Amino acid sequence: MQITVEALAHLLNGNVVGNGDVLLHTVAKIEEGTEGALSFLSNPKYEEHIYTTGSSAVLVSRSFEPTKFVATTLVQVDDPYAAFTFLLEKFANPAAQLSGIEPMSFVHENAKLGEGVYVGAFAYVSDGVEVGQNTKIFPQVFLGAKVKIGSNCTLFAGVKIYHECVIGDNCIIHSGTVVGSDGFGFAPLADRSYKKIPQTGNVIIEQDVEIGANCTIDRATMGSTIVRKGVKLDNLVQVAHNVEVGEHTVMAAQSGLAGSTKIGKFVVIGGQVAIAGHLQIANGNQFGGQSGVLGNIVDEDKKWFGTPVLEVRDSLRASAVNRRLPELLKRLEEVEKELKKLKNE
Amino acid sequence: MQITVEALAHLLNGNVVGNGDVLLHTVAKIEEGTEGALSFLSNPKYEEHIYTTGSSAVLVSRSFEPTKFVATTLVQVDDPYAAFTFLLEKFANPAAQLSGIEPMSFVHENAKLGEGVYVGAFAYVSDGVEVGQNTKIFPQVFLGAKVKIGSNCTLFAGVKIYHECVIGDNCIIHSGTVVGSDGFGFAPLADRSYKKIPQTGNVIIEQDVEIGANCTIDRATMGSTIVRKGVKLDNLVQVAHNVEVGEHTVMAAQSGLAGSTKIGKFVVIGGQVAIAGHLQIANGNQFGGQSGVLGNIVDEDKKWFGTPVLEVRDSLRASAVNRRLPELLKRLEEVEKELKKLKNE
Amino acid sequence: MQITVEALAHLLNGNVVGNGDVLLHTVAKIEEGTEGALSFLSNPKYEEHIYTTGSSAVLVSRSFEPTKFVATTLVQVDDPYAAFTFLLEKFANPAAQLSGIEPMSFVHENAKLGEGVYVGAFAYVSDGVEVGQNTKIFPQVFLGAKVKIGSNCTLFAGVKIYHECVIGDNCIIHSGTVVGSDGFGFAPLADRSYKKIPQTGNVIIEQDVEIGANCTIDRATMGSTIVRKGVKLDNLVQVAHNVEVGEHTVMAAQSGLAGSTKIGKFVVIGGQVAIAGHLQIANGNQFGGQSGVLGNIVDEDKKWFGTPVLEVRDSLRASAVNRRLPELLKRLEEVEKELKKLKNE
Repeated sequence: MQITVEALAHLLNGNVVGNGDVLLHTVAKIEEGTEGALSFLSNPKYEEHIYTTGSSAVLVSRSFEPTKFVATTLVQVDDPYAAFTFLLEKFANPAAQLSGIEPMSFVHENAKLGEGVYVGAFAYVSDGVEVGQNTKIFPQVFLGAKVKIGSNCTLFAGVKIYHECVIGDNCIIHSGTVVGSDGFGFAPLADRSYKKIPQTGNVIIEQDVEIGANCTIDRATMGSTIVRKGVKLDNLVQVAHNVEVGEHTVMAAQSGLAGSTKIGKFVVIGGQVAIAGHLQIANGNQFGGQSGVLGNIVDEDKKWFGTPVLEVRDSLRASAVNRRLPELLKRLEEVEKELKKLKNE
Repeated sequence: MQITVEALAHLLNGNVVGNGDVLLHTVAKIEEGTEGALSFLSNPKYEEHIYTTGSSAVLVSRSFEPTKFVATTLVQVDDPYAAFTFLLEKFANPAAQLSGIEPMSFVHENAKLGEGVYVGAFAYVSDGVEVGQNTKIFPQVFLGAKVKIGSNCTLFAGVKIYHECVIGDNCIIHSGTVVGSDGFGFAPLADRSYKKIPQTGNVIIEQDVEIGANCTIDRATMGSTIVRKGVKLDNLVQVAHNVEVGEHTVMAAQSGLAGSTKIGKFVVIGGQVAIAGHLQIANGNQFGGQSGVLGNIVDEDKKWFGTPVLEVRDSLRASAVNRRLPELLKRLEEVEKELKKLKNE
Repeated sequence: MQITVEALAHLLNGNVVGNGDVLLHTVAKIEEGTEGALSFLSNPKYEEHIYTTGSSAVLVSRSFEPTKFVATTLVQVDDPYAAFTFLLEKFANPAAQLSGIEPMSFVHENAKLGEGVYVGAFAYVSDGVEVGQNTKIFPQVFLGAKVKIGSNCTLFAGVKIYHECVIGDNCIIHSGTVVGSDGFGFAPLADRSYKKIPQTGNVIIEQDVEIGANCTIDRATMGSTIVRKGVKLDNLVQVAHNVEVGEHTVMAAQSGLAGSTKIGKFVVIGGQVAIAGHLQIANGNQFGGQSGVLGNIVDEDKKWFGTPVLEVRDSLRASAVNRRLPELLKRLEEVEKELKKLKNE
């Protein structure tokens, strides 16, 4: 990003108040601004910062009227936060300008790549792969045989997608994430060793899904492990074989879903949460960090915490008493003693 | 997989009942069958599905006698589930047909590769590496100096094995797993900073081990971190330096073993379990998900749950009362009040 | 490593007692010694082992006087442990002798590499990258645009550093670790779907930091996620966007820090610990494995355990009573019964 305030205002259909020739090359929070940075003021409670900011320009609402002297250049727009986000998407996306097939990549002759696709060096695109338009495949990505990737996706460096998995449009997958590894399925034998159960299904990830770094999403034993549209997974998340994650559900870092569990829509799963296998979780439930879920959750839109989970309110109440247990034990012993005395009298 | 029912039956030494010319190209659960799919019926409680299945053919026991009209083609075999598994291993293994050294891989001139070995593009095979027959090394794998890999192994895309580590025969390691990274060993100094303790041992993984995606198994400080034969690790599992995991032990996703701990044989470790360092865990113990183990476990074959672990039975009983703690506190207060009243009388 | 005891003693400024011609090629604990191995005796409580060790040579203190017959060769030095560590660093470092740019790597013409830098095959060094002297970049590493890496760093195979992140001098990053992936930031919309908030900051890692395998450190939304000097992270650790980890803090495997949390200096975080977002943790606090921290910690140098955390002492006391809860409930019921009887009398 390297742009004058004037050019920026033109792009945003905004008005410049101050010096339009100033050159901008980065963004910053208004309270952390530096020369050459663009900030925004959206929430009135941060107004004080605009009089002291080091940023060279600030996006403000058209209705904003300064009550003191302003040193920085202002750009008046309809919605400063929306305008700022628009700029970030346009200028700060590292994948935006990449296209073409880099030398030292491998693209199988039977792979089909859409227009505007980028394939970085050391990426491996196997036989029968199909990739939609404008999708960016960073260096060192692996796409197994017959993988299908939609349009406008970004697969960051080192993502691994096993054979026959399917990724929808507008998905973002961060580095190190593995999609389609074998589910953890073994049949115990008489001698207490285990025999592998072949995992012959795949993973289907629908559109508008973002998956963080170093996640693992296993292929189904048969059929598909499914991640529905709009799901957002943080880093180091585990999704086991034959799981289904419902639309617009979010999972924070290091959380995990055991095999065959079905998660509803709009569910919110905190960090390090574990949900056991073969369960059904209804829409809109929320789980606090480190919760452990051992049974089905039938009601919608409740909040849970603890292992095994209780409703948050009950869990916090029980915790509050739990830390007083040594005191309670003493009081109980006292009561027993007194009672004995009374009986003896 | 693309095979006629007739050819399939021949391969399985089975008998066709129905149309043997039908072409099969996939597999499915009997209740989710589609045209061109093969299913199996093993457990009699699923018999109803055979009368309605969309699959083109179903493997059945020789003793199976339909009680209604069957539209699909049947293949009678001795053991339908075993036959099905045999087929999956034969046809659904993505590594089965790979062999040869792909261009754009790096194989050091002092590396020794057995017959039938596959090395994918962008894989790096260092000085002094030895790889046994028919082992498949997918693209982007890294084998450090003097690594030894047995025969009939599969290392999926992007596996990293540090120098001098040893992997036995018939092992499967999934994408992103790291074997042989430095153990977490630091000596605290007087100024509260830390000095690295060199980690000069290695990792030894015996035969028939399967390791999931994005696991980490650290090399020993001196000597070896050891994973015994038949062990199965799920995804995102952590095995610290100088740990030993006993034969045929299984660990579910996101579980971790701290340094120098010795796990016995046939142990079952649930998801997100943590076992502290320098412990001994006897054979056959089982740990429920999210358990935390802080001391040795001397008895064999017990079941544990919670942090710190209790035997499952005790843990669940304590949990059941724990959630009633606010009520218990109230009852205790009531008792104290009444008792005071009684004493005053 | 292949060296005579004589040459070794010369290197360490030590004196040989016994046969100086013996050839050493490995190291071992004194109690696990084998022919050709070097061990050390530092702690007098292990003295017995020196009379039975299988090692070919042992480093001992100049003040050590054997009380029995010693078969192995001794090398007298000022500080046996320090001398041993010095040797390990010199001989057992797999990166020590690597240098030069391997063919089949990609180094952008605008990248600047210092003297003695190693770039392995299939590594990708983007436009505008700067790498300091003697830094070792193993195969399959990815360095995004404008990444800055200091001097004397080691980035093991497959490390991924996103654009604009900064790594200080003397850092070690193990395989599979991802630095600079997008923070988990999404704005909820009216229809309960989510809109991505662009993550335009970076990650700054200061000098002398070691990061284990398969960790994830997200870039800031704006500004920087910061890991201060001397920090040590074990494997599979999660550091969310806008977090700051203070100097010389250590985090064990599978622990995680949620967004915007500030961790002080000298903090010790056990395995699988979770610390919630937007918190402040004072210097020198220690957290036992699997702890969950839900609030600020203002006092320094305390020890914590449990979810939610209590001081270790209180947590263990509460746990001790917690397991007796079913018994307590029975005793309370008994008391209530007796009291009722008394009142009726």
